[in-house]
Amino acid sequence: MKLIIIGANGTVGSAISNELGARHELIRVGKASGDIQLDISDSAQIRALFARTGKVDGVVVAAGSVHFAPLNEIEEQHFHIGLNSKLMGQVNVAQIAQAYLHDGGSITLTSGIVGEVPIRSGVSAAMVNGALEGFVRGAAIELPRGLRINVVSPGLLEASVAALGSFFPGFEAVSAKRVGLAYAKSVEGAQTGQVYTVR
Amino acid sequence: MKLIIIGANGTVGSAISNELGARHELIRVGKASGDIQLDISDSAQIRALFARTGKVDGVVVAAGSVHFAPLNEIEEQHFHIGLNSKLMGQVNVAQIAQAYLHDGGSITLTSGIVGEVPIRSGVSAAMVNGALEGFVRGAAIELPRGLRINVVSPGLLEASVAALGSFFPGFEAVSAKRVGLAYAKSVEGAQTGQVYTVR
Repeated sequence: MKLIIIGANGTVGSAISNELGARHELIRVGKASGDIQLDISDSAQIRALFARTGKVDGVVVAAGSVHFAPLNEIEEQHFHIGLNSKLMGQVNVAQIAQAYLHDGGSITLTSGIVGEVPIRSGVSAAMVNGALEGFVRGAAIELPRGLRINVVSPGLLEASVAALGSFFPGFEAVSAKRVGLAYAKSVEGAQTGQVYTVR
Repeated sequence: MKLIIIGANGTVGSAISNELGARHELIRVGKASGDIQLDISDSAQIRALFARTGKVDGVVVAAGSVHFAPLNEIEEQHFHIGLNSKLMGQVNVAQIAQAYLHDGGSITLTSGIVGEVPIRSGVSAAMVNGALEGFVRGAAIELPRGLRINVVSPGLLEASVAALGSFFPGFEAVSAKRVGLAYAKSVEGAQTGQVYTVR
C-alpha cells in the first residue's frame, strides 16, 4: 500500500513508520522533516500536500499540538491551540483526504490516554482527545466507497518516560512495537469507527 | 441551594428545572427568555452573568448549538460553530463559575447520546460531546475547594421525538423525569468527573 504518515518523525510517528514501513511505501510528512513539510493547523497546506502526493491507500496522522497548563492558569485562547492544531488539523486531514483515497482506503488519527485517564495540566488534551474519538465515531458511518476511519489512543510511550514520565505518575509505559501494531490494525484491518487503545 | 440553570427553557432545561425547582432556588437563564439573558458563545456575557448573580451553590448548563449536516457537506467553519458555542460556551461557564461557587459547589454540563452512538449528519455533535466529556474528566481532578464537575449525556427526549425522531432511527426515547434525575445526581450527589448517561 502507498501510505502518507503525517508526523512521521515524532515518537508515535517513528513507531508507526517502523511497523508499516517494513511492508508498505511510506510518504513521510513532518513539520520540519520528512519527504514533505506540513503545518497541520493550515488547511491550505493540507490541500497542497494531497495535490502533490496524488491518490493513496491510507493516511495516518500523529501530529498536532495542545497546550498543557494547570486548570487555574489555562485561558480560553489556550484551549483554541489544541482545537485548531491537534483537533481541527487532524479533522481537516480526514476531510480533505477522502478525495485522494482509493476505494476501501483508510484514515487513522491519534488521540491519547489523557481524556480517558486524566492527568494534572491535561485538561485541554483531554478535551481534544475526546473530540477526536467522537469525530471518528460520527464520521465512520457516513464515509463513502468503503473508506474507513479509526483513531489510535496510545498510552505513555517508553521512549517518552524520561521527558514526560513525571506528568504520568504510576502509568505503565507502552512499547513502540505495541503502538505500531495498533496503527497496523487500523490500516490493514477491516474495521471502522474504532478507538484502538494501547495501554 | 441556589442554582443557575443556563438554557432553562429548552427541552432538557425544562426537565432540569422541573426536577430541581421543586426544592432549590433557581436562576433561570436563556438566550431570549428566563430571568437573565445570555449568549453562551460570548465569554464577556458569561462574566457579566456571574457578576450579577453573585455566589451560588451550583451551575447547570444545557445550552449551546452545533451544526448538523452530512459529512460530505460539512466544512471547516461549520465545525467551529459547535466548538465555539456548545463546547467553549460550556467550558467558559465552567471556568468562570469557579470563582462564584461556594466550597463544595457543583458544575454540571450537557453532552448527548450522539458521540457515543453516531447518527447521520451528527459528526460535529459527536465531536463536541466527546470533547465535553474529556474536559470534565480532565477538569475534575484539578478543581479546588471541593468543587465538583460532571456532565449529563441525555438520550433523545420523548418531547423531541416529533421534531427530531427521524434523525434517531430505532433510538428508545427517554423521559424528561429520568433526564432531570441525572442532573439531580450531579448537583445533589457527591461524585465528580462523571458522565451520567440517560439511555
